[in-house]
Amino acid sequence: MRFMATRKLDCLWPVPADIDIAQSVDAQPITHIAEAASILLSELNPYGSTRAKVKLSVLRRLESSPNGKYVVVAGMNPTPLGEGKSTTTIGLAQALGAHLHRPCFACIRQPSQGPTFGIKGGAAGGGYSQVIPMEDFNLHGTGDIHAITAANNLLAAALDTRIFHERTQDDAALYRRLTAELNEFTPIMQKRLHKLGIHKTDPKALTQEERVSFARLDVDPDTISWRRVTDVNDRFLREIEIGLGKAEKSITRRTGFDISVASEVMAILALVDDLADMRQRLGAIQVAKSKAGAPVTAEDVGCAGAMAVLMKDTIEPTLMQTLEGTPVLVHAGPFGNIAHGNSSVVADRIALKLAGVNGFVLTEAGFGADMGCEKFFNIKCRTSGLKPDAAVLVATVRALKFHGGVDPKNAAQENAAALRTGMSNLLRHIQNIRKFGVPVVVALNRFSTDTAAELELVKELAMQEGGAAAVVITNHWSKGGAGAVELAQALIHVTETTPSNFQLLYPNSASLKEKIETVCREIYGAAGVEYLNNTEEKLADFERMGYGDFPVCMAKTQYSFSHNPELRGAPTGFTVPIRDVCVNCGAKFVFPLLGDISTMPGLPTRPAYYNVDIDCETGKIVGLS
Amino acid sequence: MRFMATRKLDCLWPVPADIDIAQSVDAQPITHIAEAASILLSELNPYGSTRAKVKLSVLRRLESSPNGKYVVVAGMNPTPLGEGKSTTTIGLAQALGAHLHRPCFACIRQPSQGPTFGIKGGAAGGGYSQVIPMEDFNLHGTGDIHAITAANNLLAAALDTRIFHERTQDDAALYRRLTAELNEFTPIMQKRLHKLGIHKTDPKALTQEERVSFARLDVDPDTISWRRVTDVNDRFLREIEIGLGKAEKSITRRTGFDISVASEVMAILALVDDLADMRQRLGAIQVAKSKAGAPVTAEDVGCAGAMAVLMKDTIEPTLMQTLEGTPVLVHAGPFGNIAHGNSSVVADRIALKLAGVNGFVLTEAGFGADMGCEKFFNIKCRTSGLKPDAAVLVATVRALKFHGGVDPKNAAQENAAALRTGMSNLLRHIQNIRKFGVPVVVALNRFSTDTAAELELVKELAMQEGGAAAVVITNHWSKGGAGAVELAQALIHVTETTPSNFQLLYPNSASLKEKIETVCREIYGAAGVEYLNNTEEKLADFERMGYGDFPVCMAKTQYSFSHNPELRGAPTGFTVPIRDVCVNCGAKFVFPLLGDISTMPGLPTRPAYYNVDIDCETGKIVGLS
Repeated sequence: MRFMATRKLDCLWPVPADIDIAQSVDAQPITHIAEAASILLSELNPYGSTRAKVKLSVLRRLESSPNGKYVVVAGMNPTPLGEGKSTTTIGLAQALGAHLHRPCFACIRQPSQGPTFGIKGGAAGGGYSQVIPMEDFNLHGTGDIHAITAANNLLAAALDTRIFHERTQDDAALYRRLTAELNEFTPIMQKRLHKLGIHKTDPKALTQEERVSFARLDVDPDTISWRRVTDVNDRFLREIEIGLGKAEKSITRRTGFDISVASEVMAILALVDDLADMRQRLGAIQVAKSKAGAPVTAEDVGCAGAMAVLMKDTIEPTLMQTLEGTPVLVHAGPFGNIAHGNSSVVADRIALKLAGVNGFVLTEAGFGADMGCEKFFNIKCRTSGLKPDAAVLVATVRALKFHGGVDPKNAAQENAAALRTGMSNLLRHIQNIRKFGVPVVVALNRFSTDTAAELELVKELAMQEGGAAAVVITNHWSKGGAGAVELAQALIHVTETTPSNFQLLYPNSASLKEKIETVCREIYGAAGVEYLNNTEEKLADFERMGYGDFPVCMAKTQYSFSHNPELRGAPTGFTVPIRDVCVNCGAKFVFPLLGDISTMPGLPTRPAYYNVDIDCETGKIVGLS
Repeated sequence: MRFMATRKLDCLWPVPADIDIAQSVDAQPITHIAEAASILLSELNPYGSTRAKVKLSVLRRLESSPNGKYVVVAGMNPTPLGEGKSTTTIGLAQALGAHLHRPCFACIRQPSQGPTFGIKGGAAGGGYSQVIPMEDFNLHGTGDIHAITAANNLLAAALDTRIFHERTQDDAALYRRLTAELNEFTPIMQKRLHKLGIHKTDPKALTQEERVSFARLDVDPDTISWRRVTDVNDRFLREIEIGLGKAEKSITRRTGFDISVASEVMAILALVDDLADMRQRLGAIQVAKSKAGAPVTAEDVGCAGAMAVLMKDTIEPTLMQTLEGTPVLVHAGPFGNIAHGNSSVVADRIALKLAGVNGFVLTEAGFGADMGCEKFFNIKCRTSGLKPDAAVLVATVRALKFHGGVDPKNAAQENAAALRTGMSNLLRHIQNIRKFGVPVVVALNRFSTDTAAELELVKELAMQEGGAAAVVITNHWSKGGAGAVELAQALIHVTETTPSNFQLLYPNSASLKEKIETVCREIYGAAGVEYLNNTEEKLADFERMGYGDFPVCMAKTQYSFSHNPELRGAPTGFTVPIRDVCVNCGAKFVFPLLGDISTMPGLPTRPAYYNVDIDCETGKIVGLS
């Protein structure tokens, strides 16, 4: 890995708007970035000149090469002030790659288009630490989310239409139409037959009873858990009634749309090993139960092969670049509450092999470390078998004061008492990560209003009370990689001197209740867990059905260690309510719901799109943030 | 234009399945195809190794070069037997390019994913006349349809959410939120202000009355014509009720989804000149009326800039290749009834310049020539100003017998009487095209059941009664370009000896009623037109609102010259009912509805997806047709 594509930045002050910085730098041809990262041109599928998919054949070529250091970037519980976790991931990658000349990949999530035009804006980092071109990053990428939408919605349409055909046709007609002109069942049909214990290949050979059990999925509409998705913040689709057209013969149903990144298909993409694993997981997706209580899967519906075909290109991560020309792999972006909120296993694996023994892979975990990082360890690393070497935990003085009870608009004022109180949040995150055996480097993103005394206090408490391996003040938002060189040096030092003793928090064999209770107690600081609405029976059911080995993926607010978003700092003594439990049989985790989780954002009165337009002379985008 | 990338085919008999033929040939690197077609590498945006977008800068570079011959490929009224129009377009391109060494582009539509997994299967041609790789062609392409879906649905979400915010906020709160922290209206807001005759830039400067008229679109929900879209055959979304969630406060509404290619955004893409034209047209899309009856546009809603940003890459056509290595431009694919059913103006323009004075551009018109070709002339050529040199009209003996009243399952039997009766269909199409001053070459796709006498009869009638410039029997489905060499030679001869005197069928200045009646009388053979349901008043309204200059785009069945799909051959004496009239202010045409037009297909009991899967060892797709 040569990493020769790096470029020097001239940083202005005051720092211009993100899009102005991003557009002030010409992205290098992605083939240069790839070459510098030792990716062969034959391993590249370019998408335009600044994006390229990287083929999984890299893994075969480098099978016997050593991995680089595997570093997760996590945050404290997010505040309205913004802490800069993505910005730190990119800034640190720029420091390691462009300043310290270490092979270094940032592995980040593909953002949803919803927030880009809604409230949040884009997710390419900020200031002088960004992925470019930010418009390509924030818009269609290389089409992975569109493919997920297509696969998810094909399954939904197939399911509803199948119910329609079963209701409007008698047994003989249904079987005749399903098997017309076939001398042999299609391989996809044979998968369903095998599940039913029928091992005949000739449609004419089935008994009457076998024909009915093959042809009738007999879905109980009240059990349908599969929803449609769209990559738009469309609140009016949260709850809808479908099938109101005359031709649908009064077979109506209540359902709704989620935003595309909330699809189980996205959670699957982030966890798969390879195409075969993806195909198997897509088929295993459970969409409903039959009236007799049997699980109905995508395989039963008959469209899992088509879903895999729609998804075939998504398995390749997308190579992009930072402002300083270091490589970034963008891949997957599942929800952080109902899913695991981490980018893909495949991208991390490719990056680790390419980075090699002297290199680093920085992978970002969503939300606060109680959610993103716990799931990174207990779900993503459990699935992949990869062992992280260190964690970078991002904090700001302002956010710490917020967690100490200060109103956001007063967070710029010096307030040692509030800072000391709010440190409880950071300290618990540090201690939590150390429970996994992973050393913690705190990145303290500096704001101009921070005082020297405040910064010193954070350092002292994080080291002495938290047991952080290092605490470093950073300026990469205003200075690019140069502002994170000290952080990069500290990270190198820690990985060289403090070995990771990575361990999972619970074994696969623990009961689902034990898994839930371990996370609530050890990570959230809860006093106990309360199972509401038959959730205990449901969990016992899951274990009977063979899902007891799955890890748990807590669907909780990101704003607090607890289930109550108002509880800042490091609350204790609370009891976590388990309001519902669901299972993703394709992504292979059980997700308990601790509160109302919105899976479809809305648009505010003045959405971000009011600023967005295209300069028709130059083709440049304006107003994207 | 060098066109050196061509390749020889070894054609097997019997002809294997389409996907087996397609996968038996390794697609050449798209950069080779581009180079051979004299496209500079700097004018190319590759998407993987077999697709590349072509930049519009080609047009600037070749501004003063002469155009190639412009040839439209059209069909008779489609029958259940399949006539092979796409196959002829591709086969003829292979003949001209790979056998006669003429620069030749095929310009075709991007297919919807819906039919690929539904009934019809893919649209890449067939047999030894195909676009490859057919799986890339039939699936995501270069993402244009996904971008259209995103832009269409952003507008829908923005509209419904705006109605919500207007209903739940008083005047002061609404204005405050729309203009919070703005010292100056955003450029997009200023567009709405200018429309209202307000030329102030400071939000604080508006009078109370101006604030209300700016902030309240005051949409009449009963007038909303904008629907959501998805690229899936999802019949249960045809008619739905939205907003049933508690948070939406009982602001519910009946609406539905169309398939993505039915979106006006697709019709716009096919007709635009450049980015500026696209931006203007997107803003002009009319989505509803205010309670006072004023049109509400995408520009008023505030998201037309964001839509243009989502659509920015779609304006570049996608270069692919035929089985014999000749270039294909794939671009846009609007519906053929509620829209014009033709691929893009931009792709045709680029192809004409690249083909140059000795070259040919074959562009395919949807459905039968009464729909696709009439719209090609009266809408697409009217918009672009391009003048076609010839038309190739595709027919089969079987389809002619069907139009002569024969049942499809008997169409293989010799039947001179039925053939003679059915010829009326072909003859009227030939005569129609000649009304536009364009010479017609008939391509008679040969089937093994056709007799020499039948073929001779078609030839004789088409030449002598129809006035076709040539009639040629073709075998490109089984023989590739070699099977269409004679057709290619005839086309070259006709364009060299029979000059086109292209003329539109009606002037812009004719009234909308005159335009409708001209098409019904001259093209369909109708005795008259009947205006139902206030359509006359609506048309008069359109003219008052300034849409009188638009061409008309008839939404009619494709199966008959008439509005009745059962009337085969060349019916006369019927009266065309105009049941409704609508206007696309962005695509700039008025579309009268002559019957029920489905804009969302369904899935059959055994959809195509039952055959589709991925071979996880090789990554190859199986079962796509």
